[in-house]
Amino acid sequence: MYAFTLFRHEIVGEVTKVGCNVTKFKVGNIAGVGCMVGSCRSCDNCTQDFENYCSKIVWTYNEHYEDGSRTFGGYSDKLVVDEHFAVRIPDNLSLQGTAPMLCAGITVYSPMKYFGLMEPGKHLGVVGLGGLGHMAVKFAKAVGAKVTVISTSPNKKKEAMEHLGVDEFLISHDQEQLQADMGSMDGIIDTVSAPHSLSSLIELLKTNGKLILVGLIVQPPELPVFPLILEMLSDESLMGRKLIAGSTIGGIKETQEMIDFAAKHNITADVEVIPMDYVNTALERVSKADVKYRFVIDVANTLNSPY
Amino acid sequence: MYAFTLFRHEIVGEVTKVGCNVTKFKVGNIAGVGCMVGSCRSCDNCTQDFENYCSKIVWTYNEHYEDGSRTFGGYSDKLVVDEHFAVRIPDNLSLQGTAPMLCAGITVYSPMKYFGLMEPGKHLGVVGLGGLGHMAVKFAKAVGAKVTVISTSPNKKKEAMEHLGVDEFLISHDQEQLQADMGSMDGIIDTVSAPHSLSSLIELLKTNGKLILVGLIVQPPELPVFPLILEMLSDESLMGRKLIAGSTIGGIKETQEMIDFAAKHNITADVEVIPMDYVNTALERVSKADVKYRFVIDVANTLNSPY
Repeated sequence: MYAFTLFRHEIVGEVTKVGCNVTKFKVGNIAGVGCMVGSCRSCDNCTQDFENYCSKIVWTYNEHYEDGSRTFGGYSDKLVVDEHFAVRIPDNLSLQGTAPMLCAGITVYSPMKYFGLMEPGKHLGVVGLGGLGHMAVKFAKAVGAKVTVISTSPNKKKEAMEHLGVDEFLISHDQEQLQADMGSMDGIIDTVSAPHSLSSLIELLKTNGKLILVGLIVQPPELPVFPLILEMLSDESLMGRKLIAGSTIGGIKETQEMIDFAAKHNITADVEVIPMDYVNTALERVSKADVKYRFVIDVANTLNSPY
Repeated sequence: MYAFTLFRHEIVGEVTKVGCNVTKFKVGNIAGVGCMVGSCRSCDNCTQDFENYCSKIVWTYNEHYEDGSRTFGGYSDKLVVDEHFAVRIPDNLSLQGTAPMLCAGITVYSPMKYFGLMEPGKHLGVVGLGGLGHMAVKFAKAVGAKVTVISTSPNKKKEAMEHLGVDEFLISHDQEQLQADMGSMDGIIDTVSAPHSLSSLIELLKTNGKLILVGLIVQPPELPVFPLILEMLSDESLMGRKLIAGSTIGGIKETQEMIDFAAKHNITADVEVIPMDYVNTALERVSKADVKYRFVIDVANTLNSPY
């Protein structure tokens, strides 16, 4: 298997061998593996296709299968995986552009579908324009939604508007800009894990608006309760019944659905492909937010396998 | 109009006069008026039957109509109201038991419906067993849901289990009791406005569980973000994609739907009927939580009208 990956859990490669009971793949197919490679397959969550919320979930790296064997993820040129946890990658998607969708893509696709935000005419806010944020923009634009990016970085505006087709770009500390958009959004995907206030984001939502947190904010922010229930935003604008939700990745069925949706709309992640020996430099650049929008390692061509 | 009310906005009485364009009521019908007596009728929220989120909402008391005239609410023996903002009260419902449903009832009914919690087999938590909480219990039991009350008051347990048919009664500071119910609830209606932590309530929810805040908590509590996204509750239990929402009352169409539901299931609020001159004593008792579950003033028989 050729493995392209940025994180160790966004992996795409060619199927080089299949077990005798495998029905989903043939040798030569392209397969993708995301954050998980195992689950119990029988609990409430598993039977509803939410393997991502199974208590026996086996993460793709630094974890153990039930038999004690370790999972190593995608920093390797071969991977053995249960076919259930691999998704089919259609021919028209590039390997490198598809890999990041297996975590970054599904993490935004799943809540956008579940909370009814991937619909024509809806107004979606996207907080943070990185690996996750730029996927949210692409999915939402594909269905004809209006997309507003909310970012701390004014220097991302040109690229967002011209290349990604974003409709509006708000600077998150510019109260005047935020004020003008109050009560206008059906939903917001918040991808930022750095500490930040939720109050102004809640104000951007319409009645019944939904703020979805997918960034792992460690320090609990304040929860303004009144604005969720009922808030007079201006003489012209009273809003209420808002919600804040969390979400992480998605089940395998939904991940396949996302990949098929991406293939239909010719959507892939924007990536910079790097050789294995560039990884340390790439990590330094990631810490400075200097990447558009994901690094992908060409493992197959740049790793000297010791095996 | 005979008006029964605890707050000034939970009013039921007999129709004594109708205007020439009124089609919904005849003289002699019983009508109910809740928290609002006016809205613009044309904005996005109004046209979707969410008059309760209209920016031109006219509250039932201490407010002004567009022409400047004041609203006085239910501390009176007559009330003139636009028929749109009055609901029909079926004959089998008592006036005094119906009045509190026009605020306390709809405040819990609306989110329970919207968030899919009023369904057979669902497990609903109810935080706080007062005017709102006891209505949530009655609605949920009527559809065959399992109901667990979470309360600070052990002395409410007997009444809750024996009279209201509650399935479980948890003391909110008893960590052992809460622990045993972790990850078991589809939703929680939190009616408490006093400051309290949300963490243990979030832990009670299943994957996709919903915590609905209807109490106006003034001091913003901490929002634990990780537990909304993904949380390992025990070796056997991983839960995620939870949400916290706010909600207030409901639109007129939904209020009528609630009253019709109550009539079908013979549901009314449990009340203590008092004369007008008992109001100050009643308020003192309310501040000590000494009421089951709402005071209702018999205005018609105990107010000496100066008119």
